Amino acid sequence: MKRIALDMDQVMADLVAKFLNRFNKEFDKNYTKADLIGKRLPELDEEAPQALYNYYGDPTFFRDLPVIPHSVEVVERLSEHYEIYIATAAMEVPPSFTAKFEWLQQFFPTIPQHQYVFCGDKSVIQADYLVDDTALQLNRFKGTGVMFTAPHNSNMDYPIRVNDWLEVEQFFMDELKK
Amino acid sequence: MKRIALDMDQVMADLVAKFLNRFNKEFDKNYTKADLIGKRLPELDEEAPQALYNYYGDPTFFRDLPVIPHSVEVVERLSEHYEIYIATAAMEVPPSFTAKFEWLQQFFPTIPQHQYVFCGDKSVIQADYLVDDTALQLNRFKGTGVMFTAPHNSNMDYPIRVNDWLEVEQFFMDELKK
Repeated sequence: MKRIALDMDQVMADLVAKFLNRFNKEFDKNYTKADLIGKRLPELDEEAPQALYNYYGDPTFFRDLPVIPHSVEVVERLSEHYEIYIATAAMEVPPSFTAKFEWLQQFFPTIPQHQYVFCGDKSVIQADYLVDDTALQLNRFKGTGVMFTAPHNSNMDYPIRVNDWLEVEQFFMDELKK
Repeated sequence: MKRIALDMDQVMADLVAKFLNRFNKEFDKNYTKADLIGKRLPELDEEAPQALYNYYGDPTFFRDLPVIPHSVEVVERLSEHYEIYIATAAMEVPPSFTAKFEWLQQFFPTIPQHQYVFCGDKSVIQADYLVDDTALQLNRFKGTGVMFTAPHNSNMDYPIRVNDWLEVEQFFMDELKK
C-alpha cells in the first residue's frame, strides 16, 4: 500500500477562513479569500503580521478551524487503498500542538494517532506522496508532491495541482491504475 | 550531508531515572535500573502501569528529565558532519508535547526547531540513520537502525548497538570514512 502524507492547514483545515473572520471583525474590514491571491497572510494588510502573531499565540486558535469540504469522506475512501499520514509543520506554531491533535481526533477519527506527524521541514517525511499548499515544502519532499490550491499559490506553476478534495480523490484513484 | 534522526526518551533524556525516582518515593521502594533489565516500565511492579499512566498524564513530567551523559556535546560535534533531526514518538503521550519542545530548546539549542519531529510510527521518518532504544521502531525505519542500550533492550540481539554517547560518536565518525 502506498503512503500519502497530508498537510493540515489549507488542505484539511481552513485556516484562511478563520483568520479572515477574526481579522475582519477585529479591524472592521471586509477582506475575502480573493484578496489573498498570490499573498501569504502577513501580506494582506499592515495590521496582519501582528494580528497573526497574536492569533498563533492563542492555544485555542487552531481548535475550531472549519474542515475543508469533502476532505473527511475522501480521506475515508482513500484509506481503503492508501496509508494516510498527517504531516503538519506544527513546529512553526508550538502553541498549536494540543489544538491540532484534538482537531484531528474530532474530525478525522479514522486516522490513527500514530500516523500524525508534527514537524517543521517536510524533507523528513517518508511517504510516496505529499499533498500540501506550500511550494517550499513540496520542493523539499523526496516523493511526489501534489499542490493543493490555496489563494497564495493559485498563480504558481507546479507539475501536479488539485483544486479541491474531489480532484484529490480522482488523482489518487487514477494513480492506482498506473 | 547524511541525516541522523535521534529518539529522545532513553537516548537523549533519562526517562527511566525520573520514573524510578518518582515511583520509589511514592511507593516506598528501592528499584534501580538493574531491576528493569529485559523489562518495559509497566512490567516493573504491579503498581507500575497505573503510576506510569498518571505520570504520562502530567504535562510537566517530561520537562525536567535528566540529560543522558555526553549527549549534548556529541550532538554538537556530530552536527558538523551530519544533519541532526529529532524523532520522538510523542503521539503516544500527547500531554508531553509542550514539555518535550521546551526541553529540547533548553538542552539542545543548537538543533533548530524545524528539525524536531513528533510522530508515532517511525517508518514515516526520512533519514539515513535512526538512533533509538526501541526495536519495534528500529525495525519499521527504512534507513540504518542504531540501537541505543537501555535496560529493557540490553539482552536483545541487534546488528548495530551503541552503549553510550561516546560510542555514538565513534560509530558516526567511522561511518564518515566509509
